[in-house]
Amino acid sequence: METKNIGLRGIEIADTKISNIDGEKGKLIYRGYDIFDLTKNSTFEETAYLLIYDELPNKHQLNEFNAKLVDARNIPKQMQKNMANWRKDADPMDMLQAFVAALAGYFDEEFSTKEASHDRAINIIAKIPTIIASWQRIRNGLEIVEPDPSLSHAADFLYMMSGKKPTPEVEKIFDVCLILHADHTFNASTFTARQVASTRAHMYSATSAAIGALSGELHGGANTEVMKMLVDIGEVEKVEAWIKEKMSKGDRIMGMGHAVYKTYDPRAQILKELSRKLAEETKEIWYAITEKVETVTISEMKLQKGRDIYPNVDLYSASIYYMLKIPVDLNTPIFAISRVVGWAAHIIEEKFAEAAPKPALYRPKAAYVGKYCGPEGCEYKSLDLRK
Amino acid sequence: METKNIGLRGIEIADTKISNIDGEKGKLIYRGYDIFDLTKNSTFEETAYLLIYDELPNKHQLNEFNAKLVDARNIPKQMQKNMANWRKDADPMDMLQAFVAALAGYFDEEFSTKEASHDRAINIIAKIPTIIASWQRIRNGLEIVEPDPSLSHAADFLYMMSGKKPTPEVEKIFDVCLILHADHTFNASTFTARQVASTRAHMYSATSAAIGALSGELHGGANTEVMKMLVDIGEVEKVEAWIKEKMSKGDRIMGMGHAVYKTYDPRAQILKELSRKLAEETKEIWYAITEKVETVTISEMKLQKGRDIYPNVDLYSASIYYMLKIPVDLNTPIFAISRVVGWAAHIIEEKFAEAAPKPALYRPKAAYVGKYCGPEGCEYKSLDLRK
Repeated sequence: METKNIGLRGIEIADTKISNIDGEKGKLIYRGYDIFDLTKNSTFEETAYLLIYDELPNKHQLNEFNAKLVDARNIPKQMQKNMANWRKDADPMDMLQAFVAALAGYFDEEFSTKEASHDRAINIIAKIPTIIASWQRIRNGLEIVEPDPSLSHAADFLYMMSGKKPTPEVEKIFDVCLILHADHTFNASTFTARQVASTRAHMYSATSAAIGALSGELHGGANTEVMKMLVDIGEVEKVEAWIKEKMSKGDRIMGMGHAVYKTYDPRAQILKELSRKLAEETKEIWYAITEKVETVTISEMKLQKGRDIYPNVDLYSASIYYMLKIPVDLNTPIFAISRVVGWAAHIIEEKFAEAAPKPALYRPKAAYVGKYCGPEGCEYKSLDLRK
Repeated sequence: METKNIGLRGIEIADTKISNIDGEKGKLIYRGYDIFDLTKNSTFEETAYLLIYDELPNKHQLNEFNAKLVDARNIPKQMQKNMANWRKDADPMDMLQAFVAALAGYFDEEFSTKEASHDRAINIIAKIPTIIASWQRIRNGLEIVEPDPSLSHAADFLYMMSGKKPTPEVEKIFDVCLILHADHTFNASTFTARQVASTRAHMYSATSAAIGALSGELHGGANTEVMKMLVDIGEVEKVEAWIKEKMSKGDRIMGMGHAVYKTYDPRAQILKELSRKLAEETKEIWYAITEKVETVTISEMKLQKGRDIYPNVDLYSASIYYMLKIPVDLNTPIFAISRVVGWAAHIIEEKFAEAAPKPALYRPKAAYVGKYCGPEGCEYKSLDLRK
């Protein structure tokens, strides 16, 4: 049987100026800048500006961008009332997908120019944390916490979610997590966003669709699955047996391995260090368990299949969010808080590409392998004659 | 510059048993059956069964399937209350995308088996017409019309939308339209549905995303654009000048041309005949205008570029819906009423493929063409140093 382009791996489908992965060297570049430099020196807001506008902002540009983001944080009160009608045990990603689509029912900005798209991007980036935090309060029967304009994007989300302002250390850790997740070229959700945008659907529509793709456990849902695994293991001493049993059944270990990186995922490297520091401070066991998951999986993979495997971005983010007291099922929504920046940049690139080859509506080919009764089709028998 | 796989045209990405297009011969086959046979002999419900279960149903199976669909038509009252909070001029496709995603906030069926997926498919197929009709009533300040269990899927939608039961002739015409739009292999929305499902996101999520893709004017939104064009032209005598002026500017004529069909789209052939008959009965001008758009575009294309062009599915569906007194901006939502069947079948195929090559998470490659300052990335200058 002919090999198909399964999962489109290795199939180059478009040009991008937004980010670049060097899978061999373990490098991730946003608009020319290495994420090691960005996590060390930049902020989420500055990185978001870079990804959307293709340049690092000067002081004036950054102030203006921050002010626009802060201004756009509030969501319609009515939306919060509607949320209250959902099942309290609904998946927060379902809620997020629905309410981001619903933003189109409240806002109707001009979207025909690149500049207008930038403003719509700001509106969506600003509102996603508020939607998630509102849901977290509502489902727990707590009063909604309004955005605080004096706080950064990272700090404001933690504040709206918990009702408590984070320490500068916690704010910085969370800010680095947001920087690290902001873009990763044509991953499944970003490709979904580009695809929906390729039909000329608008940005709310494309972003909502991307959230749907992110929710799957093979994509953004993986960080939630990692934490469930860590909690299930529960003790450092139990890691080895747990991992070996899983791997002997041929099961994947969540948080390990990546389709593109053939070496250590640079994001995992940065997150590992953050997790280690956080565990030192909090005296919690989650770094130690995670680190053991990493080493056991690596050595078992070598033993069983002679292959190298490395942690991906999800492995260490899980323990960090847990130590920051973030509910496990908000791990994936938090991924969206950050990745929406990449989605917006890609949607804009897809719609306003200036140079050839310009993107076109994505319409791949299928190989029909179903019933075939000749060129005229199968004979249609009337209902009475069917058994 | 290297040619990229723009729009994935011609790139075979997976096997399917669901439908097949013969673009050279102008054939569309659902699960082995020619759509000419299905529109002549079958009903929307029977065709939906065929697409989802891979066989035409016997009497018992069809009765059971119909009963399940009828049972699942009602949507939560609360959802209708939430709709009332939207801008009355919101795009119905935005509303549909949001409320299909929101179904996940009310229903939490098992979805880990193929059989459970079939039931979830029925739930979504049954509820989409109710969501659209509810919105049509709400935005016009009219009382909501509850589903009537005695009516077919086609008739019940028209009834809920207008408050009047359609004649058997109108019901049949609308039913044929629904059969014709039910599947079309890997078009942009179906590919979106498969892609979201490939991350293991659930069916509400994948369907909502597909609605987003369908909303774009290069995809499902085209039938709305066709009707706007026809209304704009307004008279048969004005067609020629209107089309020539558009084409001289290099603009596309909506409803003409298709990426896959190199001859007459079989759906357009069937719809053209329906439109002709309907215009005879109603004495309306919309068939005559549409037919003139077709002939002028064909001859102009031949003249200007020496190329053949044919009507696609959107050209004649627009006039039919208009003569059926369906509001123009519901043309694309009606596309969704039908295409959701194909989406569901493809989502199930994507998730439960039995034979290799099994589908995998879609992750294409990007060509990075952005800033490059060497393997270590560009130099990060501090904010103070930026101009």
